Amino acid sequence: MKVTVLGLGSMGSALAGALLAAGHETTVWNRSAGKDEALVARGAARAATAAAAVAASPLVIACLSDYDAVHGVLEPLADDLRGRTFVNLTSGTPEQARESASWAAGHGAAYLDGAIMSTPPGIGNPAVMLLYSGSSQAFAEHRDTLASLGDPVGLGDDAGVASLYDTALLGMMWSTLAGWLQGVALTGADKVDATAFTPVAIRWMSAVNGFMSTYAPRIDAGVYPGDDATLDVHLGAIEHLVHASAARGLDTGLPELLKASIERAVAAGHGADGYARLIESVRAGGRA
Amino acid sequence: MKVTVLGLGSMGSALAGALLAAGHETTVWNRSAGKDEALVARGAARAATAAAAVAASPLVIACLSDYDAVHGVLEPLADDLRGRTFVNLTSGTPEQARESASWAAGHGAAYLDGAIMSTPPGIGNPAVMLLYSGSSQAFAEHRDTLASLGDPVGLGDDAGVASLYDTALLGMMWSTLAGWLQGVALTGADKVDATAFTPVAIRWMSAVNGFMSTYAPRIDAGVYPGDDATLDVHLGAIEHLVHASAARGLDTGLPELLKASIERAVAAGHGADGYARLIESVRAGGRA
Ligand SMILES: [Ca+2]
Ligand SMILES: [Ca+2]
Repeated sequence: MKVTVLGLGSMGSALAGALLAAGHETTVWNRSAGKDEALVARGAARAATAAAAVAASPLVIACLSDYDAVHGVLEPLADDLRGRTFVNLTSGTPEQARESASWAAGHGAAYLDGAIMSTPPGIGNPAVMLLYSGSSQAFAEHRDTLASLGDPVGLGDDAGVASLYDTALLGMMWSTLAGWLQGVALTGADKVDATAFTPVAIRWMSAVNGFMSTYAPRIDAGVYPGDDATLDVHLGAIEHLVHASAARGLDTGLPELLKASIERAVAAGHGADGYARLIESVRAGGRA
Repeated sequence: MKVTVLGLGSMGSALAGALLAAGHETTVWNRSAGKDEALVARGAARAATAAAAVAASPLVIACLSDYDAVHGVLEPLADDLRGRTFVNLTSGTPEQARESASWAAGHGAAYLDGAIMSTPPGIGNPAVMLLYSGSSQAFAEHRDTLASLGDPVGLGDDAGVASLYDTALLGMMWSTLAGWLQGVALTGADKVDATAFTPVAIRWMSAVNGFMSTYAPRIDAGVYPGDDATLDVHLGAIEHLVHASAARGLDTGLPELLKASIERAVAAGHGADGYARLIESVRAGGRA
């Protein structure tokens, strides 16, 4: 398969390298010179201009610094994109992705917007997820090629959704890691090493994954039974987290915030409901 | 193996039921009558008094309402515990566990304090963890019997540690679930179902587990290289989480708190360090 990669920063270079490794005829282009030498040595075709790079392949992947850079490069080449698939792996917002999708549609190009859930060294590893949204047809057509970069996860026709998932998943990462650091600090204060606590923590995360799987359909249905544990029970237990953190001189900001969100829901009369009830207050801007 | 269970609330009854299911000669006792009928029908021996229950088995498991109840029942029977192993699965603090361990040691009983990382329906499932700390010798001796209740995880000789892990793991659960709810609300605002987002979120948690595994030895060593992503990079990315949440009218409390902790570390000059650097500010009570 012929593929073009526009942008050879550390991520773009990793993408082109993975495509080459998978045996694809890869054309590369970068605004400034000298970034393509290692790739050319590995068999990539060097395009002298962005126009030549776009003309070289039916599948054009861009990984540039931001959406302004994407527009700067591709706006003059809009007609050259006609009939091709443009996969934009540049980091940006859902709104930027949707604008680009409209622009591409207006010029007869199929558009996919993607989010790479990895740093460059992970590219090519099938355990790494790359999220795509936009043209489902283009995704189906190019899925096998995109699989060279990591596992392709298709998220449907709204081009903004991949970027939104990206933000949502990074949010989960920060939140989970913050809870883990609190646990490391708590147990560490009583002489437990982080390397001792962490394998148990990781096992426990399987149980937490199970809670998410249980709660997700309840959230979609808007029902929050307190069958496993009620918010009243959670509130009683979370006092220990605040207390144990304070007693060890640790930051209590995160425990207090988690407690406050449960407390508000209990105060609003939802103490007999399950944890998933809290989605309502997240949606309501923090009001229970 | 002969085992005694003191306390037949929903958790104590589940414990006794799992021991019976595994073929152990199980003696049960509860302060108030009538809780043991189903268990006796399944083969449990009913003890008329707590003293008789303790005398029946070398392994005595208590699951009572709180540590005051434990003391109320066992204080008068201290001499009867001599030479036996007392496993206290009552919920409480590390400090209470350590006091009970001293008390048991003073009366010649081996002591284990435990934390059950499950609700009663999970008892007996080998995927469920029960955490034990206290006498490593007693843990080794009774591990096979305790395995009837769920996977026994031994955490060493400090009896307070199981309870501390319990609090730390529940803290991780609340923090992770709060991050997940934020993600569900974010993607949900753009018409993604929780049941669509959650399987991707669960896959992503494997990557997050990998970050914890990478960072744990760094925390133990006190070195925080910014090789995968620096705090400067995290700060740039977390702006999107705050912005996307605010733009959708969602609660921004958690995103703002996560951002503030990164911001403080960057302001203190640690922007080129990795995420694990934040452990220092958790330990320092929130000061970067
Ligand atoms: Ca993108
Ligand atoms: Ca305990």
